[in-house]
Amino acid sequence: MTFDSLGNPNHEHQDTSKLLKDAPGIVPLLPMLYVAWADGMFTEEEFNIISTHLQAQPWFNETEKVLISRWLNPTTPPSPQQLQYWLELIQEIGQQVPPEKRKKLADLGLEIARIGTIEGYQRCSTPEVCAALDEVENALGVISNEVIEELLTTVPPPPPPAEQLPTPEFNIQQLQQVLDGEYPSLREEIKLLLSQPEFSYQYGLSRNEYREVVFNWVKKLANKGYGALSFPEEFGGKGDMGAFIAVFETLGYHDLSLLTKFGVQFGLFGGSILNLGTQKHHEKYLHQVADLTIAGCFAMTETGHGSNVRDIKTIARYDSATDEFIINTPEISARKDYIGNAALHGQLATVFAQLEINGKQYGVHAFLVPIRSASGSLMPGVHVEDNGEKMGLNGVDNGRIQFKDVRIPKENLLDRYAQISSQGEYSSSITSPSQRFFTMLGTLVGGRISIAAAALSAAKSALTIAVRYAYQRRQFAPPGNCEVKLIDYPSHQKRLIPRLAKTYAIHFALQKLIGLYSQQDQNNQREIEVLAAGLKAYSSWHTTDTIQEARESCGAQGYLAENRFASLKADSDIFTTFEGDNTVLLQLVAKGCLSDFRHSFAEMKFPGLIKYIARKASTTIQELNPVITRITDESHLRDFHFLLNAFRYREDHLLITAARRLKKRIDNGIDSFTAFSQCQNHLLALANAFVERVILEEFIHSVEKIEEESLGKILTKLIQLFGLAQLEKDKGWFLENGYIEGNKAKAIRREVEKLSHEIAPQAVHLTSAFGIPNALLAAPIALNLPHNQK
Amino acid sequence: MTFDSLGNPNHEHQDTSKLLKDAPGIVPLLPMLYVAWADGMFTEEEFNIISTHLQAQPWFNETEKVLISRWLNPTTPPSPQQLQYWLELIQEIGQQVPPEKRKKLADLGLEIARIGTIEGYQRCSTPEVCAALDEVENALGVISNEVIEELLTTVPPPPPPAEQLPTPEFNIQQLQQVLDGEYPSLREEIKLLLSQPEFSYQYGLSRNEYREVVFNWVKKLANKGYGALSFPEEFGGKGDMGAFIAVFETLGYHDLSLLTKFGVQFGLFGGSILNLGTQKHHEKYLHQVADLTIAGCFAMTETGHGSNVRDIKTIARYDSATDEFIINTPEISARKDYIGNAALHGQLATVFAQLEINGKQYGVHAFLVPIRSASGSLMPGVHVEDNGEKMGLNGVDNGRIQFKDVRIPKENLLDRYAQISSQGEYSSSITSPSQRFFTMLGTLVGGRISIAAAALSAAKSALTIAVRYAYQRRQFAPPGNCEVKLIDYPSHQKRLIPRLAKTYAIHFALQKLIGLYSQQDQNNQREIEVLAAGLKAYSSWHTTDTIQEARESCGAQGYLAENRFASLKADSDIFTTFEGDNTVLLQLVAKGCLSDFRHSFAEMKFPGLIKYIARKASTTIQELNPVITRITDESHLRDFHFLLNAFRYREDHLLITAARRLKKRIDNGIDSFTAFSQCQNHLLALANAFVERVILEEFIHSVEKIEEESLGKILTKLIQLFGLAQLEKDKGWFLENGYIEGNKAKAIRREVEKLSHEIAPQAVHLTSAFGIPNALLAAPIALNLPHNQK
Repeated sequence: MTFDSLGNPNHEHQDTSKLLKDAPGIVPLLPMLYVAWADGMFTEEEFNIISTHLQAQPWFNETEKVLISRWLNPTTPPSPQQLQYWLELIQEIGQQVPPEKRKKLADLGLEIARIGTIEGYQRCSTPEVCAALDEVENALGVISNEVIEELLTTVPPPPPPAEQLPTPEFNIQQLQQVLDGEYPSLREEIKLLLSQPEFSYQYGLSRNEYREVVFNWVKKLANKGYGALSFPEEFGGKGDMGAFIAVFETLGYHDLSLLTKFGVQFGLFGGSILNLGTQKHHEKYLHQVADLTIAGCFAMTETGHGSNVRDIKTIARYDSATDEFIINTPEISARKDYIGNAALHGQLATVFAQLEINGKQYGVHAFLVPIRSASGSLMPGVHVEDNGEKMGLNGVDNGRIQFKDVRIPKENLLDRYAQISSQGEYSSSITSPSQRFFTMLGTLVGGRISIAAAALSAAKSALTIAVRYAYQRRQFAPPGNCEVKLIDYPSHQKRLIPRLAKTYAIHFALQKLIGLYSQQDQNNQREIEVLAAGLKAYSSWHTTDTIQEARESCGAQGYLAENRFASLKADSDIFTTFEGDNTVLLQLVAKGCLSDFRHSFAEMKFPGLIKYIARKASTTIQELNPVITRITDESHLRDFHFLLNAFRYREDHLLITAARRLKKRIDNGIDSFTAFSQCQNHLLALANAFVERVILEEFIHSVEKIEEESLGKILTKLIQLFGLAQLEKDKGWFLENGYIEGNKAKAIRREVEKLSHEIAPQAVHLTSAFGIPNALLAAPIALNLPHNQK
Repeated sequence: MTFDSLGNPNHEHQDTSKLLKDAPGIVPLLPMLYVAWADGMFTEEEFNIISTHLQAQPWFNETEKVLISRWLNPTTPPSPQQLQYWLELIQEIGQQVPPEKRKKLADLGLEIARIGTIEGYQRCSTPEVCAALDEVENALGVISNEVIEELLTTVPPPPPPAEQLPTPEFNIQQLQQVLDGEYPSLREEIKLLLSQPEFSYQYGLSRNEYREVVFNWVKKLANKGYGALSFPEEFGGKGDMGAFIAVFETLGYHDLSLLTKFGVQFGLFGGSILNLGTQKHHEKYLHQVADLTIAGCFAMTETGHGSNVRDIKTIARYDSATDEFIINTPEISARKDYIGNAALHGQLATVFAQLEINGKQYGVHAFLVPIRSASGSLMPGVHVEDNGEKMGLNGVDNGRIQFKDVRIPKENLLDRYAQISSQGEYSSSITSPSQRFFTMLGTLVGGRISIAAAALSAAKSALTIAVRYAYQRRQFAPPGNCEVKLIDYPSHQKRLIPRLAKTYAIHFALQKLIGLYSQQDQNNQREIEVLAAGLKAYSSWHTTDTIQEARESCGAQGYLAENRFASLKADSDIFTTFEGDNTVLLQLVAKGCLSDFRHSFAEMKFPGLIKYIARKASTTIQELNPVITRITDESHLRDFHFLLNAFRYREDHLLITAARRLKKRIDNGIDSFTAFSQCQNHLLALANAFVERVILEEFIHSVEKIEEESLGKILTKLIQLFGLAQLEKDKGWFLENGYIEGNKAKAIRREVEKLSHEIAPQAVHLTSAFGIPNALLAAPIALNLPHNQK
């Protein structure tokens, strides 16, 4: 066999002519043979069938039949060299074939034969041969034109074009102004300060070094008066809670240990003196709290009691003989735990304890207890343990505090809501012990709102980094092209864009809540408490989810500390737990919904809810419009009314059915605690529905106020995407309750993909509008964008 | 007014008799007054209505009317002392009232009047007064009997009973044997070794210290021969891949840096020499790899190319003059990145590079490149950077490697699948370049399976800790009772129990896959590749999700490093990315589904899938049985056939519809790359459905083989819960496609809660059966259980 030597790369050119001369009839098969072998397209069985079939054809000569039997035999594969040789032959001659004649591999083969060996062409251009070739091509089962283009392409794919961001469809600065709302210059001031080298992130510090760095950062902020913003002017502040939260929100773009330590010192500790203390406390302490000459703790949580503060065990016994309180930790589970500033820096602690006078219990009250001297040594009777290494926030010195017969003077009771007379008699302006307790806990509302906002800042950082990376990172290429950007993949869009929309949605709802809270209007008090609890849970869970998704969408880059997800994730993880465990908070929200927010949700005991439950249970559930459940056109799906109605329907339905389930149980003699427990998952769904409805409403209200058209346009898409994405997420509920039909659910899914696709090109600008300075983003993968705004 | 002094606590007893004497008619109101004030139950409006109404009643004397106007006036609330005094009066007399006469507050009040002041009783026990009292009680709107019980309870609630775990309903050791499957004694051996003090977890180390600790741990394992288990016996191994994976799986209970470094050294680096090299490489290196005298790297990923390995840019040019390869990093994005062992310990690297001979490209091949001398100095032309701080796995020294004209001898080509002759000619036993490439990548399959198993070990640790904590932690009490354990709350059950069931499900599916893989049967090769990819993605995502949920369910305790979630979470986070990004892997799985696994999924290019797609697209979707879509009874929902059919239907439906969508696009002239991109989310859903169906099937098959009845019983519940929980999660899909109706979806949700509730008492035993030693769990919150098994 002369053709054995075809496998020898040293004789390629000689062999080309040899093949064309001695076995011209096989040339039309070459492209198919090449593809079959190069891509491993045939199974053994398929090889055999085709080989047998072709060998039976009368128009092949004997040399050709031998080659066919060899080249279509899975046990005697051509060598890689042979394959390479075929490819070169196909490319050399094939490139002369005009595009319209190379749509099928068989056609290409015939044309190659026509150009290279007229005999092969003549013999094979009969209808019988063409039919046989077609058969082989069909068995191969490939998309011929794509395969041919790939075969004939000899130039490498072009390099990716110079990166250019899509043109913004709106004014980014203008959008940032809208997002910043009040205090834009204060925000810029903080960003500028945090962008200074002295505030650079530091990785790989020991815990002690890190704690000192953070302490000094807090000190710098204190020295500029930022810690005191919510304090009255006479104590160096501005009496401006909104400004304080704006600072806190901006600190959320930086190291979250700094944020937390700042929050502990000024928000919780300072806030407790401000809100629970009276003039004498303000005068004595607020100045020193503000400038951090006294670092303090907010010692509420105990090892055994976190969510259930009412049952904490620390005791403050009044000693009328000396006019003092004696603070004690009666058991190990009553030690104060996870207390920020306790392990190292705290000198004074606001300690929540059960007040006891003459053997009688008066419930939880707050006391100022010195725990360390100015020189840092522990006070007698105070025992402190370091909480040690934590998942994150290791720049904050959390610790455990135990008290043994620690005596404090009577004036250390924070006595705004309860006093003890000179005769040792207890009095209070609030008659109800429950109400008194929850009024004292009111300090936490501001903390919850602040945490909700700061959590969202962390989510914004994560999204900004991930979105920017998705515009640069390319992976996998269509044949003959450069690789595709991650942002252009639908699965990547689905990961990031709906979360971006949700971040915007929560942002507007939070700004509204912050505004209400800052006005300190007593009439809104109950609504604010419920919203703070609900938005804290919703925002912090969104943050956990978003950072995780952002990390994964940056692959291994996302795992490097320098790209910030490590700290964002670890530090913010506890946001779903502290300032109120999210699951517990949502149950309080549900109780609020059940009682129409007429009573402060937290003070409402279960047995007292029955009046409201009975009323809700007798409400009729709105009837559905069978036409609307089926409409699937885009203008309907994107209509705010459709979205709002859906969110409102879900909330009402969950509320009424929850009330009915509760009432049924109570009517059957089940105690209310058990009844509520049994309906717990239902109540959590209700709370979620309530919060989402509020967010959607606030998002729409806020955007409707914006006059600038291009801003309105992009924000409208974000509203639509937020609304539809939440509907899609919960479509099981809407379907099972008949609110939408199957085709509508599918249409919603398509619309979510479509909107994500429409918004994706603008996503990088939408994250730029968050206005996070590069110095704070810091992630190298986020800083290489062309036209990087800052 | 004599009664003004009632507010004075110094005259309590005197006042009691005074009140009973002078205003006896008000006594029946006292319980209601107390509740109204103590719990803040009335709004201002309600106070006014009731007060006006009562004062108009003719049977009250003037003193009583004055008191009513005062005590029902929100602007003149009683003092806390007054409230206390009422409570004492109610308790003192109320406790003498027989239970059947104290169901309503009004009745209680009347009985108190009857005992304390006969006049008050006589005057008020008329029908008119009773009606008025009822009215007040209704306006109060409380669950009277519960409120009364709380009012009259003067003893503190009992302390929680001594902890006692529920009796196991099965033999825990027996279940552990089932889970352990093969190699039980090897697993015990490893656990025993890891439980030694020298393997204690160390927190707060610097990165360098941590890396040394981990290196020494790996050395210890190497010295005992565990690293070599998969190597042939002649090189100190046992030729037992199954044993190697069993060790790896068990290491998953310990520090995951150790696991990863162990995997890099023996699985990836050692595995590449074993599987891609030939006898000469085995003889030269395997012994030294096995005992860690040569630490090595698996240098595949580049900064610019992770998922798309085929397009890596590192070049290995053959120099025929010297019979060497010259290794080069042509651009910064072509540096090898995230390479374990690179920053510090690696001496030799398996480097994947594009082979070039005489200017021709032969695709990706693997080469052994020395990067450091035995003394640790870098080789000429080798540049290494440390990846620095990472989110986790900081005990592994990941780094970046760049090559500049690094020369290696020809024999350093790992030449099992491709050789270069003495004349510099390329040959290979595998004709297809694609097939050759993916055969070389076959090394990764074992890694994926190992990671899937180790990820699940991490999830098992997290669940064990969280479940044990849930049996001890109590929070919130029903009136008069001790606080409730977290495990008894439905929301907590829903967090943990379905994830426990899913962990079991994945466990059995993985053991089956490990068995198949260890047999090294070529016929299963393609199925194994697809399953490895699918289960790696499924298991690692499950792990991320489970650790997060477990952390949150332990509250602030979960945030302390000592309780292990910090390291479990941070270290395992990258499991969803390395050894194949999960999203990319699932797309490969989908391609496998589309091609019936007849071709190795990874080698299948898009244009070659059309044959299979056309076939799938023409398949008919199974018709639904309208009766079954509606059945909601428990025996049906828990029936394996129902579950299996649902999972199979979903998979088939998604497969056929995906094929149709793809075919429609391709028929319309859209190129196959774009067509696949457009259907990406659909394909991901298909891959998930495929993996879940396989897991359910394997779970059922495995459990059906178990003869012991009590094991079968509990595992059957876990199967049912796994199946139903996944149906619930994806109920939107089943509803929108008409597979179930609304009522059935609701029944499924109820059944998931019910099964979770049924399994919850056994959950602690189910986690004990994972057999994780206390020394490895280590979390203090997991070690206080009574009857702690180990």
